[in-house]
Amino acid sequence: MPHPLDSFFAPSSIALIGASRDLEKIPGRLLSMLRKNQYPGKLYPINPNYGDIDGLECYPSISDVGQPIDLAVVIIPAKAVLGALEQCVTAGVKNAVIISSGFAEEGGDSAAMQAQIASLARSSGMRISGPNAEGFLSEVQKVAATFSPTVDVKPGHVPLVATRRRIGIVAQSGGIGFAIKHRAKALGVAISYVVSAGNESDLGAGEFFDYMVQDASTDVILLFIEGVRDVDKFVAAACRAAELGKPVIVTKVGRSGAGERAAASHTASMAGWSAAYDATFAKYGFIISNDLDEAVAIAAVLASNPLPKGDRVAVLTVSGGAGIWGADTVSLQGLQVPELSAAIQAEIMKLLPSYGSARNPIDVTAQGVHSGGLQRSIDLLAASDEVDAILVVQSLSSDTRMPFKEAQLKPVIDAQRKPIVFYSYTLPSDFARRELAKSGVVVLSGLTHAGVALRRMVERAKFKLAPPVDVAALEVRDLSAHLKSAVLSEADSKALLREAGLALPDEVLVTEKGGLDAAIARVGLPLVMKIQSPDIPHKSEVGGVRVNIATKGEVFLAYEALLDNARKHRPNAAIQGVLVGPMARKGVEIIIGTLQDATFGPMVMVGLGGITTELFRDVIYRPAPVSAEEASAMLAELKAAPLLNGFRGAAKADVAALSQLIAQVSVLAAVYREQIAEIEINPVLVHPQGQGVTVVDALVVRKT
Amino acid sequence: MPHPLDSFFAPSSIALIGASRDLEKIPGRLLSMLRKNQYPGKLYPINPNYGDIDGLECYPSISDVGQPIDLAVVIIPAKAVLGALEQCVTAGVKNAVIISSGFAEEGGDSAAMQAQIASLARSSGMRISGPNAEGFLSEVQKVAATFSPTVDVKPGHVPLVATRRRIGIVAQSGGIGFAIKHRAKALGVAISYVVSAGNESDLGAGEFFDYMVQDASTDVILLFIEGVRDVDKFVAAACRAAELGKPVIVTKVGRSGAGERAAASHTASMAGWSAAYDATFAKYGFIISNDLDEAVAIAAVLASNPLPKGDRVAVLTVSGGAGIWGADTVSLQGLQVPELSAAIQAEIMKLLPSYGSARNPIDVTAQGVHSGGLQRSIDLLAASDEVDAILVVQSLSSDTRMPFKEAQLKPVIDAQRKPIVFYSYTLPSDFARRELAKSGVVVLSGLTHAGVALRRMVERAKFKLAPPVDVAALEVRDLSAHLKSAVLSEADSKALLREAGLALPDEVLVTEKGGLDAAIARVGLPLVMKIQSPDIPHKSEVGGVRVNIATKGEVFLAYEALLDNARKHRPNAAIQGVLVGPMARKGVEIIIGTLQDATFGPMVMVGLGGITTELFRDVIYRPAPVSAEEASAMLAELKAAPLLNGFRGAAKADVAALSQLIAQVSVLAAVYREQIAEIEINPVLVHPQGQGVTVVDALVVRKT
Repeated sequence: MPHPLDSFFAPSSIALIGASRDLEKIPGRLLSMLRKNQYPGKLYPINPNYGDIDGLECYPSISDVGQPIDLAVVIIPAKAVLGALEQCVTAGVKNAVIISSGFAEEGGDSAAMQAQIASLARSSGMRISGPNAEGFLSEVQKVAATFSPTVDVKPGHVPLVATRRRIGIVAQSGGIGFAIKHRAKALGVAISYVVSAGNESDLGAGEFFDYMVQDASTDVILLFIEGVRDVDKFVAAACRAAELGKPVIVTKVGRSGAGERAAASHTASMAGWSAAYDATFAKYGFIISNDLDEAVAIAAVLASNPLPKGDRVAVLTVSGGAGIWGADTVSLQGLQVPELSAAIQAEIMKLLPSYGSARNPIDVTAQGVHSGGLQRSIDLLAASDEVDAILVVQSLSSDTRMPFKEAQLKPVIDAQRKPIVFYSYTLPSDFARRELAKSGVVVLSGLTHAGVALRRMVERAKFKLAPPVDVAALEVRDLSAHLKSAVLSEADSKALLREAGLALPDEVLVTEKGGLDAAIARVGLPLVMKIQSPDIPHKSEVGGVRVNIATKGEVFLAYEALLDNARKHRPNAAIQGVLVGPMARKGVEIIIGTLQDATFGPMVMVGLGGITTELFRDVIYRPAPVSAEEASAMLAELKAAPLLNGFRGAAKADVAALSQLIAQVSVLAAVYREQIAEIEINPVLVHPQGQGVTVVDALVVRKT
Repeated sequence: MPHPLDSFFAPSSIALIGASRDLEKIPGRLLSMLRKNQYPGKLYPINPNYGDIDGLECYPSISDVGQPIDLAVVIIPAKAVLGALEQCVTAGVKNAVIISSGFAEEGGDSAAMQAQIASLARSSGMRISGPNAEGFLSEVQKVAATFSPTVDVKPGHVPLVATRRRIGIVAQSGGIGFAIKHRAKALGVAISYVVSAGNESDLGAGEFFDYMVQDASTDVILLFIEGVRDVDKFVAAACRAAELGKPVIVTKVGRSGAGERAAASHTASMAGWSAAYDATFAKYGFIISNDLDEAVAIAAVLASNPLPKGDRVAVLTVSGGAGIWGADTVSLQGLQVPELSAAIQAEIMKLLPSYGSARNPIDVTAQGVHSGGLQRSIDLLAASDEVDAILVVQSLSSDTRMPFKEAQLKPVIDAQRKPIVFYSYTLPSDFARRELAKSGVVVLSGLTHAGVALRRMVERAKFKLAPPVDVAALEVRDLSAHLKSAVLSEADSKALLREAGLALPDEVLVTEKGGLDAAIARVGLPLVMKIQSPDIPHKSEVGGVRVNIATKGEVFLAYEALLDNARKHRPNAAIQGVLVGPMARKGVEIIIGTLQDATFGPMVMVGLGGITTELFRDVIYRPAPVSAEEASAMLAELKAAPLLNGFRGAAKADVAALSQLIAQVSVLAAVYREQIAEIEINPVLVHPQGQGVTVVDALVVRKT
C-alpha cells in the first residue's frame, strides 16, 4: 500500500541545495555520501557558484532543474532556508529535509523562522523534515541523505549481515540514531532505515514511526525519544504496530531532573513526564530499554529469532563457570532454567566426557565441542518440548577456529523453532561473527543483555493489546457545581464522585454540634470523624482524623477536639465541618489516582496504599480509560500483587471489584478531562473476594 | 616484603612435566605460550619420549634436571600425577600447578586421587595449585603458565595500555578469568596477574587473593567466585585489602537455583548462600558486579582515576541527546548533576556557539570541539570545586579524527584531581583508543557501565572498614538448660535471651487459669496473650494471639479461646501455656535475625517488619558480630530507612537503641555459635528517640 512518505524515503530524484566540492565540510560530505552509497536515482546539485561538481551538472537554483524532484536536501545558512523552500514549492518538489541549524534550538527570531517553515509546509503540502536534522539513510533503496560519518563506505569493507529481518530506527537525536545503526551493523543486524527527526517543524517522530510500522522491509523498530510532538500520530502508529505484532524497542531520555532541563533547552521541546511515556509504551507492548547496547541486543535477537512459546531456557556451555553465570543471569530475569528429563540428559551425555553435565546448565566441556556434543545438544534442545529457548555460552575469540559447521547449524537456525541466543564471554572475533552470520546467527557480547533480551522476548510473546474502552455508555453529568475550589475537600470530592456515578459509603457532613445525633443515627457506631476543609489536604497531619469511635459521648468530645486541632494548626483554614462516616471493614489498602499528562492526556495509577506507596514506589500507570481487565493486568504488575492474592494464608482480595473501580475512575478522568485535573482515592480498602471495596478517602483537583 | 607465593608467581625456573612438540594439543601449547611471552627464566621440558623440544633439552624425569626448580607445570594423565608430584617433592620443587583434569570434578576414585595430592602438599610443604586449573599469567614477570588462547601473542600486535595502574584477577573458572583479561586488555587496562584456581587441592582462591592484596604491582583486584573454600584466608585478605584501601571488584555466581545445582556438580564445591557472600563483601567494601563488561569498566575506571570527593558529576557532551542520556544515567545511579554556577557557565559559553549549553549537561556541540570548547570545559571542570567527577559523552568512531590533543589532555589526566570518564556512543575506533591511551584515558563503550562505575567510585570513596567488635566483655552463660527442643517456644526463647543479657518486657507464662489473676496484677491492663508451644512457631495462623485486652473478664475468656484454638488447629501440639505480657507502645516494626552460614559462619540481618519483609525483601545482612555503629550503617542501607528518620512528619525513631539491640543480638549469635543456629526477633518495636525499643516476639533455634 502506498504511503505519503514513500517519495521521502525512496526518492527517484534528489536535489542537494547548497552542494559543495569541499569534502571536509558538511555540504560536500552529503553529496559524497549519497554517491558512495550508490544512490540509484537522479542527483541535482544546486549551487550558483559551480557549473559542475564531481562530474554532475550543478544548477544555480532549484527552478533551473526542470525535472520532477522527490526530495530536496537543504544545507545552506539558516536565513536563506525559507526562500529556498519557497522555490522548492514553486518547482513542485515533494519533500525537503533541512540539515541547517540555527532555528528553534536557538530561540528568539530563529524560532520564528522555524514557525514560518512549518506554516509553509501546511499551506503548500510539501513535507518538510528538520531543520537541525542529521538526515536519513534508506539502506534498501541506497539513499544516504545524511552527513553522519557512520554511513561512510570504507574501501574493501564487506558488511556483516547475520539477520534475516531488518530494523528501522527513528531518533530524536541524529547522533544517537546513527550510533544505534553503527552498533547494530557491527553485530550484523540488517537495517531498513535510520531517520533523524531534527526540530520537527512539519514531519515528526510519530509520522516517521508510522512509516516504519507499515513498511514491509522493516521488521523491528527502534525509537530514541526525547519528547513526542506529534502525539496523535505517534499513538496511532503505536496501536497499529501492536495490532500488526511488529516489535518496538524504545529508549526515552529526559527522565531525570538534569536531563529534563537540557531537553528543554536543546530540542526546544518539553521533555514529557516519563511515567506517562512508560505507561503509553506499556499499553502498546513496547520494549523499554535505556541502554544502547541492551536495546541493540534485543533488536538483534528479535531480528534473528522467532518468539518463544514459554519461559523455559536451556543454558548450553563449554565452560562450567560460564554456564553457572548464564543460568544465574537467566534466572535473575525471572525465567526458568529447568532440569532436563532423564531421556534427553542420557542422549546428550552420550557425546560428553564423564565430567560434563547435561542437567541444565548443560556443560558439554571443551572436549564435547570436538566430539559433536555441542551441535548435537542444540539439535536435541531445538526439537525438544522441554525448553522454549536456548542460550549458548561460549568463547568465540579465535581468529581461526569455530565450534560450529554451517552445514549443521544453519538448518537448525533456519527452522526458527525457538530462540537460540549466542553469547561469547571472550570478545568475539570478526572471524567468528562472519562465520556464524552465514548461519543467520548474531553473537552477543553482553551476558546481561542476552538475559534481558530473552526476558523481553518472553514478555513480548505474552503481550496482548487491550481492546479500546467504550465510554459512550457513561451518562455525562454537569459537575461544575462541585468544582468551586481548585482543590476539593474530602466531602466535596466524594459528593462529586457520587454525582459522577461512583458507589461510596453513606457519610454525613456535620457543620454544628446539633447535627451529631442525627449523624450517629444514620451512620451507626463505631464511626470515623474527619475535619473538612479545602485548605487541609493532609488531615492526619493536623490531628484531624479520629477512628473507631464507639460511644456517643466520645463522638461529641471528638467533634470539639477536631475543630480545636484544626484552629490551632491551620488558623486561616476555611472549615466546612466534620465528616462522620462508618468504620470501614478491614481490607488491603490500595491507592488509585488519575492525572493529566501534558503529552499523553489522562493517566490512571494504582499502587499499594500506606507507607509503601511513597517508600517503595510500587505503582503502575496506564493511559486512561482502562477496562476492568486492563486494570487487573495493572494490579498483577505490582510488586505487592501477592497481598491481593491471599498472602500468608489471608483471604484472597476482591480484585474484580477493585478492577471495576479502577476502570470507573479511569473513565471519569478521561470523560471529564476538561474539568478534572486529578482524582485520588487513598485509600480504598479491598475486602475479601465477593465483599467488594470501600472508598475511605478521596481528593479531586479541578483543572485550571 | 617477601611472600610464600613469590616463587609461584615469579619463578626463576619452570619444569614442564608432560611437555610435547604437538602445538595443537594443550601440553604443546603450554610450552609455546611460555616462550612466545618471553619467559625470562630457565625452562625444563620433561618427557621421556623426547631428547629435545623446540631447541630446549628435554629431560626423562624431574629428577634428571639437577637444578633448583621453582615451579612444575603438570600436564599428564590424571593417574600419573601423584607419582610425578612425589618426584617433584624429592627433587625439591617449590611449587606445582596441575593442569590435568579428572579429579574431584568427576567424584569417586578420582576425588580420592585429589585428596592424596592435598595430603602430599600438607606433608611436604610443596605448594600445589589445581588440579583442573587453567594455570596463570604473570604479566609483569612474563610468566604465561597457561594454555588459554587469550595469552597467545599475535605477530605485529602492539598491546593497548591506557591505565597507569594494574588489575589482578583471581578466578574460580579459568575460562572466565582469562575472558576478563581479554576484555580488560581490549580497553587498555594493564594487568598484573590472572590466576585460575582450579580444584584448589592446596592453594585456594583466598590465598591467591591474599597474594594480590600484598603485591605492589597490583592496584585493583577482580575476583570471580563460585564458592570460597579457604574461608579464613579469604576473609583475612579481604580485611587487609580494606585496610590498605586496595579496591576489590567481585563477581559471585551460583546465585540461582539452577546455578547452585551446577556449582555442586561442576567444581566439587557447594556454592554458598549468596546473601552471606554479599554481606561479607559489603563488610569489606568490595564492589559487587554480576556483569563481565560492567566489572571490567569499573576496574578500568579505578585503574585510571583517583576516587571522587563527592557525588556531583558534570556531563560534558558534543550532542544534546547523548548528553541528556548521560545525565539521566548518572542521575538514575543516585548521583547529582548540579547546574553549574553562572561564573563557570559564562566561561564555558565563551567558546560555544549560541545553541550550545553550559548548564549541565554541558553541550559544547560539534562546533565547540573545533573551537576548543570541549578541552577548555574539561580544564575548567577539572579545576572547579563545583563537581567531583566528569563524564565525557562523545562519538569516537573515526579512524582519523580525534577531538583531543595529547599535549592538552594528558596534563589534566596526569594531575588526577578527579575522575574523568570517557564514553563513546558510537563504537570507539582502535585509532581513538590508542590516541587517548597516550593521555592515560580508557574509552568506555557502555553508558550504563560508566554510570555504575561512577556510582561505585563514590561509594568506595565513602567506605570505612568497621573496627572489630570486642566480644570479650560479654559474660558467657551456660544456656544448655534452655535449649531443650530444636525450636524454642516464644517463652523459652525469651527466657534464653534474658539469661544471655537482653532486656525484654516483663511477661508471665500462665499454665493454668488460676494463675491469671497474678499475671494481671504483675503485667497490668491492657495486655497481650499468646499461646505457647514449641510446635506452633506461627501463632497467629492458629488464632493464638489476642492483643489490647482491657478487662479482667476478657482475659479469662481469651485464655479459654486461645487454648481451644490451639487444640482445634494443632491437636498434637505440646502446649506450654499462655504468655501474658503488657501491650507494647507504638513504634516502627523491625525484624532482627541471625543465622549460621555454612561458609562464613554467623550472620545478622535487619529489615522492616510486617509484610514488607517478605514482599519487598528489604533486608540487610552482615557477618556477626557487628558494633552498634555498624548496625546503624545497616539500617541506613534499608530502602525503608526513611521510616526510622521521621517519615511524613512522624517522630524520629530511637535508632540508637535499635542499633544497640542489633549489636547485642549479633554478639549472641557469634558467641553462642556452637549452641544457637538462629535467633529471630520479629517484631521489635522502635519507639520515638529516647524511648527505646520493645521486643514483642522472639524465636531461637538450637544448633543441631
